[in-house]
Amino acid sequence: MSATEALVEALRAAVSDPSRVTTGDSERRLHSEDLTYHAGRDPDVVVYAVDTQEVSRVLSVADEHEVAVTPFGAGTSLEGHVIPLQRGISLDLTRMNDIISLWPSDMTARVQAGVTRLQLTRAAAEHGLFFPVDPGADATLGGMAATNASGTTAVRYGKMRPQVLALEAVLPGGRVIRTGTRALKSSAGYDLTGLLVGSEGTLAVITELTLRLQPIPEATTLTRVSFADIETAGEAISSVVSAGLAVSRMEVLDEWMVRAVNNFADAGLPEDPTLLIELSGSRAAVDADLADLSELLAAHAPTGRVTETDPTAQTRLWRIRHDIYFAEKAVSPGRENRSTDVCVPVSEMAGALRASRELIDQHGLQAGIVGHAGDGNIHVAILTDTDDEDEMARARALTDALVDDALARGGTCTGEHGVGLGKIDALEREHGDLIGLMQAVKRVFDPKWLLDPGKVIAKPHD
Amino acid sequence: MSATEALVEALRAAVSDPSRVTTGDSERRLHSEDLTYHAGRDPDVVVYAVDTQEVSRVLSVADEHEVAVTPFGAGTSLEGHVIPLQRGISLDLTRMNDIISLWPSDMTARVQAGVTRLQLTRAAAEHGLFFPVDPGADATLGGMAATNASGTTAVRYGKMRPQVLALEAVLPGGRVIRTGTRALKSSAGYDLTGLLVGSEGTLAVITELTLRLQPIPEATTLTRVSFADIETAGEAISSVVSAGLAVSRMEVLDEWMVRAVNNFADAGLPEDPTLLIELSGSRAAVDADLADLSELLAAHAPTGRVTETDPTAQTRLWRIRHDIYFAEKAVSPGRENRSTDVCVPVSEMAGALRASRELIDQHGLQAGIVGHAGDGNIHVAILTDTDDEDEMARARALTDALVDDALARGGTCTGEHGVGLGKIDALEREHGDLIGLMQAVKRVFDPKWLLDPGKVIAKPHD
Repeated sequence: MSATEALVEALRAAVSDPSRVTTGDSERRLHSEDLTYHAGRDPDVVVYAVDTQEVSRVLSVADEHEVAVTPFGAGTSLEGHVIPLQRGISLDLTRMNDIISLWPSDMTARVQAGVTRLQLTRAAAEHGLFFPVDPGADATLGGMAATNASGTTAVRYGKMRPQVLALEAVLPGGRVIRTGTRALKSSAGYDLTGLLVGSEGTLAVITELTLRLQPIPEATTLTRVSFADIETAGEAISSVVSAGLAVSRMEVLDEWMVRAVNNFADAGLPEDPTLLIELSGSRAAVDADLADLSELLAAHAPTGRVTETDPTAQTRLWRIRHDIYFAEKAVSPGRENRSTDVCVPVSEMAGALRASRELIDQHGLQAGIVGHAGDGNIHVAILTDTDDEDEMARARALTDALVDDALARGGTCTGEHGVGLGKIDALEREHGDLIGLMQAVKRVFDPKWLLDPGKVIAKPHD
Repeated sequence: MSATEALVEALRAAVSDPSRVTTGDSERRLHSEDLTYHAGRDPDVVVYAVDTQEVSRVLSVADEHEVAVTPFGAGTSLEGHVIPLQRGISLDLTRMNDIISLWPSDMTARVQAGVTRLQLTRAAAEHGLFFPVDPGADATLGGMAATNASGTTAVRYGKMRPQVLALEAVLPGGRVIRTGTRALKSSAGYDLTGLLVGSEGTLAVITELTLRLQPIPEATTLTRVSFADIETAGEAISSVVSAGLAVSRMEVLDEWMVRAVNNFADAGLPEDPTLLIELSGSRAAVDADLADLSELLAAHAPTGRVTETDPTAQTRLWRIRHDIYFAEKAVSPGRENRSTDVCVPVSEMAGALRASRELIDQHGLQAGIVGHAGDGNIHVAILTDTDDEDEMARARALTDALVDDALARGGTCTGEHGVGLGKIDALEREHGDLIGLMQAVKRVFDPKWLLDPGKVIAKPHD
């Protein structure tokens, strides 16, 4: 019996239904990659766990057989997090999808890791509540916590970390731990909840989460405003952020990107750098802040400005934003969209946006710029022909140059996509003095280095 | 030469002015205790550091001499954090009090660890900004980060952790590390910033912080509302929290505590359980929310209700709240005020407030109840005669009973004061399964266990 056959046999004994352990080619292929350009790799075996005890037993088997385990949710991560670099076990958590409890008067919920954000938001809506973090994809909440996801609404609500009050997680070897409580705040020892959030599946497998919910705002408006150049757009971003308005989303699209969405969706937008600014809150607050916003934007001489109060019109505009991925691919069919993700202080947005366009041109690449402007988070979506080695090399060089520019501005190599396997070098450039500490923390949780190896930090030479 | 003499000599060589290393009795006494009932202990030597390099050299000397180091800020902590249990060095950071940079358009500031919150708020006010975390005392920001402090405004702005974007800190042995960046968000590796925040000075000595600031709200109102009993007050708290109003503070005082402040400050408040509810934001938002708040409170049949819009009248009421410590001591002069600190889900406030009063009575003690109601954070301020062993035993028993009640309600043993030396047993009751992990994390940062030993977690038997 081969080592893999022995592993599969042990895994089949570890779950209540052996058919949830599979070595079928199509299942393994489905667990080989995420949504990005990173090359996939098939796991040896896929296990669909249905409860925490099964996750525990799977991690115990992995420990005995000393094989790697890579947790898998919706597979929508953007830095290769779910690619099983050392093969082994892909541990699929999507069948752990129960909303265990929802406490409307506390505005909290306890969910299994495979519940998706839209599933939770639908359940919360019955109580006038919603789950605020929106990375675009309908990701699992376990995956969103593991990667400390954010997206369009982080400017108001923050990323995943402040939403997570408590976790249940399984350590390599199979021990189940519980961090945090249902109380809204705590000072009870080191913040292991916050440490597991954003650890990208390398410290423990998250199996349950207790999350904060938010009241659905009474009123929402969406202002689309364009400017003569990207630097003026950047200055407008700084003005709006520091004005303390009830901003719940603020997105930026550069001229190239606006042309792409016009071509793709017949959007008919003025082909200038554009901001989408959502205000939300009580009707009185939104009305008052909208007047302030208009006055403030006027000072930056916009080339166009429309405010939508009708929900349908707002949804239409947000769909354009959410379809950017497809709009961009349509610019050059056959090329892949390779998205960068840096974050800079908001006051650096004007300079960083201008530098991004200059660097794109210097590298002779086709790319649009889009960003969560209120956070200073910039994505350059580079169109790449993965068979063109020279173009791929220039795309990598551009990515490095964008990271260096962000670091020089006091920013970070990743605002939200995480390190995964694509930013390990960038993390070392940003926090070289911390890598040894991070490796030592990893050893505390995962002494045999079996959880999602090859992600976040390199394994030190023993 | 004794070991202490050798230590002092090495420390004097490590700082630029040897007079900042002192073994004088009065200096050592000033660094022997915090504001609480915990018994003090004099350090062997006090060092006043003026920059990061000196902190580094002091930690290097401590490492060579294998003596304990206890960081000291304003000395206003509430669980004995600054008491040097193993004597050694008390490292005073209050002279590191430069506001290094303040970026108004980013709403961020970089400060040395000894800057106090009011010092920063005064500097920020010139730009229409303020620092939102208010634990009452004018603590140092380094100490507030170390203990993850909160206070009256956490219901709106959160505790210290979400305010801290980046840290400079010195590890035991003297290595200087830098975590985080000036960007508002990051996913660059494990969250070591968040791990150091709340580590209570046991993992590293914080020397610099990059902090978020907030716009000063345009309008603020303060509503004082009283109810027939504490349970009704608790129900009103839940209603207000889940209504999503622009609440920036919500405090609760029980009947006993209201009587105490009436006697102390001639406050003339109705002697019923009372909430103080602050709304703040744009004038339009506050006006609209105040109407909603009034309607909502009316449903709980208040026994009295007044809304102050005049800033002077609001300040007068907040002074009453802030003087509670003295009001309570005046109830029984000579007795010490021993404050507990549990936090429960907001929906459990009604039950927890009633249980707190019942437990106080069962233990035959004099105590008032005050809390940061919007967070579910309850303090029982027990009046204790420290020379009366029976009373002290009953106070300890009451503290334990209140922790057990909070844990049974899904809450935590400490909402904001931290573990220090007073809650080590309580932390084990709450998170017994995590103590081993926390000890291992401690070893990563502090292999010789020299930083503030005896706090947060017990040292494992080697």
